[in-house]
Amino acid sequence: MSGPLTGSERSAALAPLLERGWRETADGRAITKQFAFADFTEAFAWMTRVALRAEKANHHPDWSNSYAKVTVSLTSHDTNGLTRRDIDLASWMEKAADA
Amino acid sequence: MSGPLTGSERSAALAPLLERGWRETADGRAITKQFAFADFTEAFAWMTRVALRAEKANHHPDWSNSYAKVTVSLTSHDTNGLTRRDIDLASWMEKAADA
Repeated sequence: MSGPLTGSERSAALAPLLERGWRETADGRAITKQFAFADFTEAFAWMTRVALRAEKANHHPDWSNSYAKVTVSLTSHDTNGLTRRDIDLASWMEKAADA
Repeated sequence: MSGPLTGSERSAALAPLLERGWRETADGRAITKQFAFADFTEAFAWMTRVALRAEKANHHPDWSNSYAKVTVSLTSHDTNGLTRRDIDLASWMEKAADA
C-alpha cells in the first residue's frame, strides 16, 4: 500500500496528466478529467475496458456518464489523498482512450 | 416520439417507481434513484446490461458510479421533460436489478 504522493514526486507524476487535461481538485486529494467520445457506445466501451482494469487492480474510479461524455475523479480513499495507484489508473485511461 | 407525461397519466406511470425508491427532481423534469449493489462487479454488470438496452432503445441514462453504488437520472432531453421512454427505462432497470 503506497502512501500519498507529495512534493517533487507528486509534481513529476502529475505533469504528463495535467498536459492531457487532468486537473487537481481544490483540496488536492483527487484528479479529474472529462473524456469526450464519438457517441455512447464508444464511451461505454471505454468504460468497460477501464472497469475490468480497475477491478483487477482493486482500485476503482468515481465516474459519471452522459451519452458520449465520461467525467472521472480519482483518489485513494484509504489514504485520503492521491497515490501512485491514481496516477497509474489515469495513465491507463489515457492509453485506452488513445487506442 | 412521445411527448412529456402530464396529469393522471404521469401520476399513474410514476407510482410503481416511487414505491421502488425513485424520486422526482425539484423541477419535475427528471427522476432519480441510487442503486446499491454488493460490489463493483455487480454494479458494473448491471450497468452493462442497462447500457445495451439503452443503446438499443436510443434512450440513455445520465448516471454516476462509485464502487458498488450507481446513481441514475432519467429525462428526455428532446422534450425537456419526463416521457414514457423514461418510465420504460426505469422499469427495465428495476427488472435488471432484481434478476
